[in-house]
Amino acid sequence: MKREGGELAEADIRALVASYTAGDVPDYQMAAFAMAVCCKGMSAQEMYALTDAMRLSGECLEWSECSLPTADKHSTGGIGDKLSFLIQPIVAACGVAVPSLAGRGLGLTGGTIDKLESIPGCNATLSLIDFKKTVLSCGVSISAQTKEIAPADRKLYALRDVTGTVPSIPLIVASILSKKLAEGAMTLIFDVKCGSGAFMKTKSEAVELAKALTSASIAAGRRASALVTAMDEPLGKTVGNALEVKEAYNILHARDGDKDIIALSLELAALMVQNAKGISLEFARAECLEKFNDGSAEEKFLSMIRLQ
Amino acid sequence: MKREGGELAEADIRALVASYTAGDVPDYQMAAFAMAVCCKGMSAQEMYALTDAMRLSGECLEWSECSLPTADKHSTGGIGDKLSFLIQPIVAACGVAVPSLAGRGLGLTGGTIDKLESIPGCNATLSLIDFKKTVLSCGVSISAQTKEIAPADRKLYALRDVTGTVPSIPLIVASILSKKLAEGAMTLIFDVKCGSGAFMKTKSEAVELAKALTSASIAAGRRASALVTAMDEPLGKTVGNALEVKEAYNILHARDGDKDIIALSLELAALMVQNAKGISLEFARAECLEKFNDGSAEEKFLSMIRLQ
Repeated sequence: MKREGGELAEADIRALVASYTAGDVPDYQMAAFAMAVCCKGMSAQEMYALTDAMRLSGECLEWSECSLPTADKHSTGGIGDKLSFLIQPIVAACGVAVPSLAGRGLGLTGGTIDKLESIPGCNATLSLIDFKKTVLSCGVSISAQTKEIAPADRKLYALRDVTGTVPSIPLIVASILSKKLAEGAMTLIFDVKCGSGAFMKTKSEAVELAKALTSASIAAGRRASALVTAMDEPLGKTVGNALEVKEAYNILHARDGDKDIIALSLELAALMVQNAKGISLEFARAECLEKFNDGSAEEKFLSMIRLQ
Repeated sequence: MKREGGELAEADIRALVASYTAGDVPDYQMAAFAMAVCCKGMSAQEMYALTDAMRLSGECLEWSECSLPTADKHSTGGIGDKLSFLIQPIVAACGVAVPSLAGRGLGLTGGTIDKLESIPGCNATLSLIDFKKTVLSCGVSISAQTKEIAPADRKLYALRDVTGTVPSIPLIVASILSKKLAEGAMTLIFDVKCGSGAFMKTKSEAVELAKALTSASIAAGRRASALVTAMDEPLGKTVGNALEVKEAYNILHARDGDKDIIALSLELAALMVQNAKGISLEFARAECLEKFNDGSAEEKFLSMIRLQ
């Protein structure tokens, strides 16, 4: 029993998630389970089993038709975070496909999808088929998580929200990673924000989450790295959905702008390229900088917007 | 938040129980709360607040019309436990009123009420008015807990049963004691069974429960004592509802029978009489033995059965 701090069998965790998704386990039992996890934690094996069971609760994409390596980035989010609009195009310009299903706003922070939809005529809620077509066509797509992806997570997240069981590392990892694993990218990079503008307020919490995310990704057969980055002030100069997309595009277009944003975007992009292509970090950094400076990244961004 | 092991305010606990009883707090939130209590425990103040809030969720009896001191015994139950049919009449014969609302069977163990109802024509589900009349008339009544007594406990117990939150000392104390406090007896004696035939398997668990029950009773302004007694074998010679009542009556009638049962019954009765009348344990023991031997206890038992 999780209540006594014992370890649950993988099969039991998988059965619980499957039954909960099917509606056979009532909310009150799942709420008790979530609170037990909050109070007692989970081993790496339990956390991986929970994550993978949640991944398998819905559709899982795979990219065998794609000749390029695949990678995606997840940011734990923070006020003014617009890095996806820089990093994803830079990485795609380096010859790495970036299938990026993102979330809407949570709490104070605007979601990547809300920001993207502020571009008139841009559809950021593609079907999984159109999402796949866009990635195969231009190498990058940023779109909203569809209801087919990890339905167990949507159900459990709503329950955690009303039962005081949000702040638990294993539950946070299972929530983030079940969706990222279902997306099918073989390389996953995590930008764990830390500070007053982020969900993780202290560095030690952020480091714990970063380690848990990478170790569970590796257990799932993916390549993974994480950066813990400061988020005590809004990133860049603007906050607000439309303003943030515009600021990001302006940086890609002018190859210039807020120095911190550019440096962090290039570093996260380099980590993705390094892991995805299996090259050294120095080569990856040089390639990302080149694709940023020669306009290839801007071109990828515009291709994606045109297709969507 | 109980999740982080912090202490809850008394007002918050009282509001939670009141809202849960009224149906304004859903089961999944109460299940998360129960699991947090299971995992993190409760301070003495929190446990008393929870107990008292559950007591106040329904009707509370009071015995100002009764000229005698009042006392009741609660046993945590075990296979073959028929002590109530001996102890309650002995104590009543000593001039202490014994209003005793009891439960039905739980798990393997037959409940006191099921055993009493095996006597043809004996009503063990009195209304609270008839229960009170019986106590005022013959000094003792054993009857089923009615639905007016601590409805919060009935609702929470059903939820704990299906959410893995039964084995938690503060929740057990609140469940037992909310009902006993609502019953109104000013002296409460607890017989905490320990061993393979009981709910508490180890002596340390049983001692912890005994201490928690007595301290919360004293916090509620009652006099209280507890005995931790071994329950590795069925008590007495018989197991089974009708057989157990018959064995108990035979002991009262013959003033003889299983030596362990008689000794334990007299000791618990003496604790009740000592606390209720404020006399020494030696005097109380002597009085209980006298009332057992001179047939007064048998007479009390028969009066109760006749009235019910």
